[in-house]
Amino acid sequence: MDELSRVFAALADPTRRDMVARLTEADATVSELAVPYDVSIQAVSKHLKVLEDAGLVTRTRDAQRRPVHLEAEVFDLMTKWIERYQQRAEQRYQRLDAVLDELNAADNNRTGNNRKGRAS
Amino acid sequence: MDELSRVFAALADPTRRDMVARLTEADATVSELAVPYDVSIQAVSKHLKVLEDAGLVTRTRDAQRRPVHLEAEVFDLMTKWIERYQQRAEQRYQRLDAVLDELNAADNNRTGNNRKGRAS
Repeated sequence: MDELSRVFAALADPTRRDMVARLTEADATVSELAVPYDVSIQAVSKHLKVLEDAGLVTRTRDAQRRPVHLEAEVFDLMTKWIERYQQRAEQRYQRLDAVLDELNAADNNRTGNNRKGRAS
Repeated sequence: MDELSRVFAALADPTRRDMVARLTEADATVSELAVPYDVSIQAVSKHLKVLEDAGLVTRTRDAQRRPVHLEAEVFDLMTKWIERYQQRAEQRYQRLDAVLDELNAADNNRTGNNRKGRAS
C-alpha cells in the first residue's frame, strides 16, 4: 500500500484518531494510551502498529518506557492532497457560477427584464 | 462506522482518490470513470459504492446516464479534524521550543557565556 493510503487507512478508526489526538498533547507509553479505552493492551498495540506503519507515530528505543511520539508532519501529506482537490472543486463551482450568470444575463437581456441594467 | 471513518477509509485507496480527483473536473458516468483503469466496470462500481457510502459522491436519478457528482464539502469534515490536531501539535512544539530556550538561557547565564546578552 502506498504511504498516503496507509495514512488515510490509519485514521479511518475512531480509537486511532483519539490516540493521535491525545499524542498531540504529550508522548505516552502504550499502557498510558490504553487507560481510557475498554480494550486490551494487545488491541492498543495493534492500533499503534497501524499508526507506526503509516509513519504517524514512532517509538523510541528507551527499553523500559518506549514512549510513543506523534510525527505530526505526516498530516501534511494528507492536507496537500485534500487542499489540491478542494481548490479544484471550488474553481469548478466558480466556473459553473460564471456560466449560470452569463445565461441569466442573456435571458434577462432577451426578455427585456434587465434592459435598464444592461444600458447603464 | 462513523462518517469521518468512512471518509478516511474511502480515500485509503489510490484508485478511489484518482476518481475523486477526476470528479473535481467534471461529473462522469461509471463507464467514463472506468476508462483509464485496468479493472472491470464491476470493480469501478464497487469503488463508487464506497465513495457514495462515505458521502463523497452522489448519483443523480437520470436513468440512462446517472452521472457521478463529487460532494466536495465532505472534504471539510477531514480538514477540520486534521487542522485541529495539526495546530495542537504545533503549539506543543512551540511550548517545547520555549522551554528549551529558557534552559539554554539559564545555562548560558550560569556559565557566563551569555552575560553580555542578559545584561542588556
